Amino acid sequence: MKKLNWGLIGGGEGSQIGLTHRVASTHDNYFNFVAGALDIDTEKAKKYGVNLGLAEDRAYGSWQEMLEGEKNRPDKIDLVTIATPNSTHFEITKAFLENGFHVMCEKPLTMTSEEARQIVEISQKTKTICAVNYGYTGYPMVIQARHMVQSGQLGKIRLIVSEFAHGHHSDAADMDNPRIRWRYDPKLAGNSSILTDCGIHALNMATFVTGQKIQKLSADFASCVEGRKLEDDAMINYRMDNGIVGRLWTSAVALGNQHGLTIKIFGENGSLKWSQEQPNQLYYTPLNQPTQILERGMPSLCEQSLNASRVTAGHTEGFLDAFANLYMQIAKAIYQNNKGEKIDNNKIWFPTATDGKHSIDIVEQAVKSAKNGSKWLDII
Amino acid sequence: MKKLNWGLIGGGEGSQIGLTHRVASTHDNYFNFVAGALDIDTEKAKKYGVNLGLAEDRAYGSWQEMLEGEKNRPDKIDLVTIATPNSTHFEITKAFLENGFHVMCEKPLTMTSEEARQIVEISQKTKTICAVNYGYTGYPMVIQARHMVQSGQLGKIRLIVSEFAHGHHSDAADMDNPRIRWRYDPKLAGNSSILTDCGIHALNMATFVTGQKIQKLSADFASCVEGRKLEDDAMINYRMDNGIVGRLWTSAVALGNQHGLTIKIFGENGSLKWSQEQPNQLYYTPLNQPTQILERGMPSLCEQSLNASRVTAGHTEGFLDAFANLYMQIAKAIYQNNKGEKIDNNKIWFPTATDGKHSIDIVEQAVKSAKNGSKWLDII
Amino acid sequence: MKKLNWGLIGGGEGSQIGLTHRVASTHDNYFNFVAGALDIDTEKAKKYGVNLGLAEDRAYGSWQEMLEGEKNRPDKIDLVTIATPNSTHFEITKAFLENGFHVMCEKPLTMTSEEARQIVEISQKTKTICAVNYGYTGYPMVIQARHMVQSGQLGKIRLIVSEFAHGHHSDAADMDNPRIRWRYDPKLAGNSSILTDCGIHALNMATFVTGQKIQKLSADFASCVEGRKLEDDAMINYRMDNGIVGRLWTSAVALGNQHGLTIKIFGENGSLKWSQEQPNQLYYTPLNQPTQILERGMPSLCEQSLNASRVTAGHTEGFLDAFANLYMQIAKAIYQNNKGEKIDNNKIWFPTATDGKHSIDIVEQAVKSAKNGSKWLDII
Amino acid sequence: MKKLNWGLIGGGEGSQIGLTHRVASTHDNYFNFVAGALDIDTEKAKKYGVNLGLAEDRAYGSWQEMLEGEKNRPDKIDLVTIATPNSTHFEITKAFLENGFHVMCEKPLTMTSEEARQIVEISQKTKTICAVNYGYTGYPMVIQARHMVQSGQLGKIRLIVSEFAHGHHSDAADMDNPRIRWRYDPKLAGNSSILTDCGIHALNMATFVTGQKIQKLSADFASCVEGRKLEDDAMINYRMDNGIVGRLWTSAVALGNQHGLTIKIFGENGSLKWSQEQPNQLYYTPLNQPTQILERGMPSLCEQSLNASRVTAGHTEGFLDAFANLYMQIAKAIYQNNKGEKIDNNKIWFPTATDGKHSIDIVEQAVKSAKNGSKWLDII
Repeated sequence: MKKLNWGLIGGGEGSQIGLTHRVASTHDNYFNFVAGALDIDTEKAKKYGVNLGLAEDRAYGSWQEMLEGEKNRPDKIDLVTIATPNSTHFEITKAFLENGFHVMCEKPLTMTSEEARQIVEISQKTKTICAVNYGYTGYPMVIQARHMVQSGQLGKIRLIVSEFAHGHHSDAADMDNPRIRWRYDPKLAGNSSILTDCGIHALNMATFVTGQKIQKLSADFASCVEGRKLEDDAMINYRMDNGIVGRLWTSAVALGNQHGLTIKIFGENGSLKWSQEQPNQLYYTPLNQPTQILERGMPSLCEQSLNASRVTAGHTEGFLDAFANLYMQIAKAIYQNNKGEKIDNNKIWFPTATDGKHSIDIVEQAVKSAKNGSKWLDII
Repeated sequence: MKKLNWGLIGGGEGSQIGLTHRVASTHDNYFNFVAGALDIDTEKAKKYGVNLGLAEDRAYGSWQEMLEGEKNRPDKIDLVTIATPNSTHFEITKAFLENGFHVMCEKPLTMTSEEARQIVEISQKTKTICAVNYGYTGYPMVIQARHMVQSGQLGKIRLIVSEFAHGHHSDAADMDNPRIRWRYDPKLAGNSSILTDCGIHALNMATFVTGQKIQKLSADFASCVEGRKLEDDAMINYRMDNGIVGRLWTSAVALGNQHGLTIKIFGENGSLKWSQEQPNQLYYTPLNQPTQILERGMPSLCEQSLNASRVTAGHTEGFLDAFANLYMQIAKAIYQNNKGEKIDNNKIWFPTATDGKHSIDIVEQAVKSAKNGSKWLDII
Repeated sequence: MKKLNWGLIGGGEGSQIGLTHRVASTHDNYFNFVAGALDIDTEKAKKYGVNLGLAEDRAYGSWQEMLEGEKNRPDKIDLVTIATPNSTHFEITKAFLENGFHVMCEKPLTMTSEEARQIVEISQKTKTICAVNYGYTGYPMVIQARHMVQSGQLGKIRLIVSEFAHGHHSDAADMDNPRIRWRYDPKLAGNSSILTDCGIHALNMATFVTGQKIQKLSADFASCVEGRKLEDDAMINYRMDNGIVGRLWTSAVALGNQHGLTIKIFGENGSLKWSQEQPNQLYYTPLNQPTQILERGMPSLCEQSLNASRVTAGHTEGFLDAFANLYMQIAKAIYQNNKGEKIDNNKIWFPTATDGKHSIDIVEQAVKSAKNGSKWLDII
Repeated sequence: MKKLNWGLIGGGEGSQIGLTHRVASTHDNYFNFVAGALDIDTEKAKKYGVNLGLAEDRAYGSWQEMLEGEKNRPDKIDLVTIATPNSTHFEITKAFLENGFHVMCEKPLTMTSEEARQIVEISQKTKTICAVNYGYTGYPMVIQARHMVQSGQLGKIRLIVSEFAHGHHSDAADMDNPRIRWRYDPKLAGNSSILTDCGIHALNMATFVTGQKIQKLSADFASCVEGRKLEDDAMINYRMDNGIVGRLWTSAVALGNQHGLTIKIFGENGSLKWSQEQPNQLYYTPLNQPTQILERGMPSLCEQSLNASRVTAGHTEGFLDAFANLYMQIAKAIYQNNKGEKIDNNKIWFPTATDGKHSIDIVEQAVKSAKNGSKWLDII
């Protein structure tokens, strides 16, 4: 297979998100990093691009320039990643999709449900791939969980309990810390803080693992640190399409929690537990039997999980390895797309614009529910 | 100190609850087991009492007989424990309190809030001690948590997240298992199943540790196993008197969980985590510092926690040791009561009828909320 | 069954060992505590005995007095526990056995191998029970491990790796702390410190679980804290009768370890791991399958393990519950002995004088090996 | 900084070691993969090189060809990694060093101590860098441990207890499995199996963390699976230059262990514990204080540890991230070397030929000791 060309928008010098996309996209030798518009500042963008080894004519000063520059090249980029501030995702994603580029967009896909709807539509119309970065779905043991659930190994799923509760916004003295302050300012962060930032990952994981959407929800929001205008702690109770009961706790004030993404899936014949902080194990309890510890890389795991693993069992794989699995899937999808084949969703998986839209729909209704006494609301 | 006389109602042959009360009450040499009405069957009650070493005239055939027999004896029992079916708690507790006996009643104290109100009133009027068995509060590291919270070490408490979620009712084939069936039959179990049975322990622990009551709540109930008429899974969001945000998940279908009682307390200056399945450790995270593992028996713990410990740090203490701590506290309260002293609640702690009533109030409102779309309701 | 009479020598006021024996012996209602010589000081001994509820004539001033007082009573004690300083174990145990009493002796049974040999001989000749307190063998999951090993579930055992490494003697400033100093003084502690105090428990557990004795060993001793004349850290490599390879690490300077007793048993078809600090779980890995977490009280466990459990799975049991299991076994053995039946070692288990002697033989050879460049030495 | 050119010898199609070196070397953008002799089969070597994106003239058919091809190019490789079978390491490393190339050699550096001595000498004479792949030293929390030890935070180190004990060679039925068989064949594996393969990593980590060498040792070897001619389980007791007591257990039959590399360092003022299977945490116990859980990425960690981290605290980093840290250090060393500066070992760390030689010396003496009744032997 010919290596694919990859470009990045955003992720300027010192940004962590840029680094993680660059490492993840090139980790498995599918993509060459060949183009970028890496900073909002034209000069910085060009200079940093060259520093990172881009050719001078592909170290662009803006995303518009990059779109123009790339669209007529014979060796144009096969995929562009958009890692700019949230409010710009819609415009840039739209522009690239309309010009036939495949896009990997940072989460959240857009600021509103209506915008997300448009992105889904454009992607379908232009037959382009639009992925959204729910990077935690790339962990091999999450893929194994999805396989066990969807192949019926747990029987009917009854209940999903997940958390994404960290404690990194616990210090009241951080009120003016610029790294944190904007997250609780509705003008900059929109209508929701921790749910949009973290909780939505855990909800996306529930839909990823089960293949079901969320149908209705009831939300309770709290601002535990005085003076915050958006929630720093929230509970979402929900039901999925096929009746699964769901519960999500998300928090930024769970002091002592380092990361806090966990998922527990309870079925009639078995259950699964997984935690991002110990990602190489999956705890599986068959009904009326002892709990088993499944380890990444064990020969008895499903093919997709094993393919998502690189080092032998017992060695640890981490977040960047997981994230790289998304790029691996997208590369495979591009190959199929280039051959004019339909993407086989049984073999290739990655979160798409449809998933991105679902998350935004959920946040919108959760905000409304929280304002209306935890009233149950349908997801459209 | 003279040893106290103790009697037991209920807890017949083969019952586990009888065994745990007998072990816990005599564990520390405060009580002699001298009287009992151990079975609903008169003959069995007498026979089993004698087998356990009771004198023939104090191995009673019924609680009424026991009340008559004991009330005029010079060596009458100092404390009676009531471990009969839930629906009989009110009547028996009331009768013994009215006759001046101190009572330790199994949970739930009564079937209705109104009954509980009466018990509180009678206990106050008769100056008798009425304890309720929230046995998990007896763990030394829970006592340490209470000390740290109430002495202000964590600053203002923001959030309490607790769970009591086990998986022992996961098997749909248990529908006709008599050990389980009655728990989901409203005629036998009342208006709530898992919340009354388990969740209420975790809520009581939140009030025990903080010294605050629950002010209002919103509940979501689910019956995950088909055909159940009461909830086997529930989520309660609540607020405490001083604004603490609370969240409780309770379940009987959390397959893979053995017991599942945990509590996490998040304050502005620190947090605590404790789990019943690893009760000898308390995880403490001071703001902006690494998490510390506090161990039962460490010399730096509070006096009450150290007094509740028997074996040196590193050795494990378990449920029976914790439960025995309640009896130790009650014994100390009886000694004070006998001397005509007021019970010093800073030194002596155990759950009382007031706590028992609070739990019942909570369950009643939770049931209503769950039936009304998770509406927020005040606790009277 | 008629309750048995029990007496205690040593374990005076404030001693923890006295408390644990009193709790453990009476925990399950097999024994009444009726006689004691609780202190080396005659007056204290009598006073404390009466305080604990002994009749005046059975609150003895010395063990000699107690032996005289008890031996001709019709209601004489059925079992005496010896919890005096190590150097007195031999004399007292010998005297009581020779007078036909059953004995539970604290560890170590004697100071020398020759004394231990005599105790074994006397116990056999007088047909008395002589138990030694290796209390950790009473944990239900250790009993389960023993069952799985001895019933062949792991196949041939290849390797046992155990530890008893705590950190409570790490502080060099404790040099003059009377609680610690004597342990490293050869005049008071004998020829070995941490191996005798702790390591020997882990070795006894290896013999308990496998039913095999240690055949030869090589030892490496270290005194990590300057100025200590006995070892505070030791490694023993050994071979058991049937070729099992064994390794024991024991330490008093493993700072951060609270207790540190663990055992891992590796067979050709499976392995087991157990830790005293989390005693309610046993980790079982069948060959080429995922690790399973066996929980105390699970219905699939062996009968002996279930019989050693009191509270339902998920609730914790601790050290005192485990220790009480030894007394339960001894009570059963006394009942059989009283009926003139031979004790059925398949059903009744507890560590005996033979085990006590084996430990002393091991220590003697380990000391020699450590002084001779880790030379391999046979256990006689 | 200009990116460096990197070449690989060995690591052919399907090999995991090739993949890990390619990922690790390019992970942080320091190296371009430009040359390779990837297979012992000339045709396969060339074809696979081209497939991986090498230019045709740098996809060599043998290492000799590669040496010739590279040595006179202006854009010649800055570093060559040797990932060929063990017996060829010496010859290839020697040839490249003598021609002025920097080398990263897989472990073990050579087959004999004498060969290792020569490599050290050549590297010094030619002023080339010769690194050896002890990849586990690259974990950020191992670097933090090293910092805490060498900056004196634990006081004098007393004791190091480490393990590298996995269970992947437990199945006796694997006797003829080619992946395993050669490891126990002295003709192919040399004089030692599990100690050379795994144990030596744990010993290297002890020297890495303390900066001390091993001075003398006593070994006990066992072949737990019948028919094996080399050890599959070993215990090494040792002393380091400054008197540290050391203990290493290494095994291939520790069924149930997935990886099993752990290290515990006990000092007079504190201790540390780290495990490769949970590499993002370091357990730190200061004397007489509770244990603290240090997390990768915490701002209070040392600069070198933070520099070795890429993603924020709470996210996991794994083996490939750790291994990439070695390449990052080597790149920095090459930059300094190119500028004619002496490598500052306070800032730049990676295992060198000297470390590789020390490991081989240790294995040689351990084999002798094990054959001579665990006799203590000096390391030359």
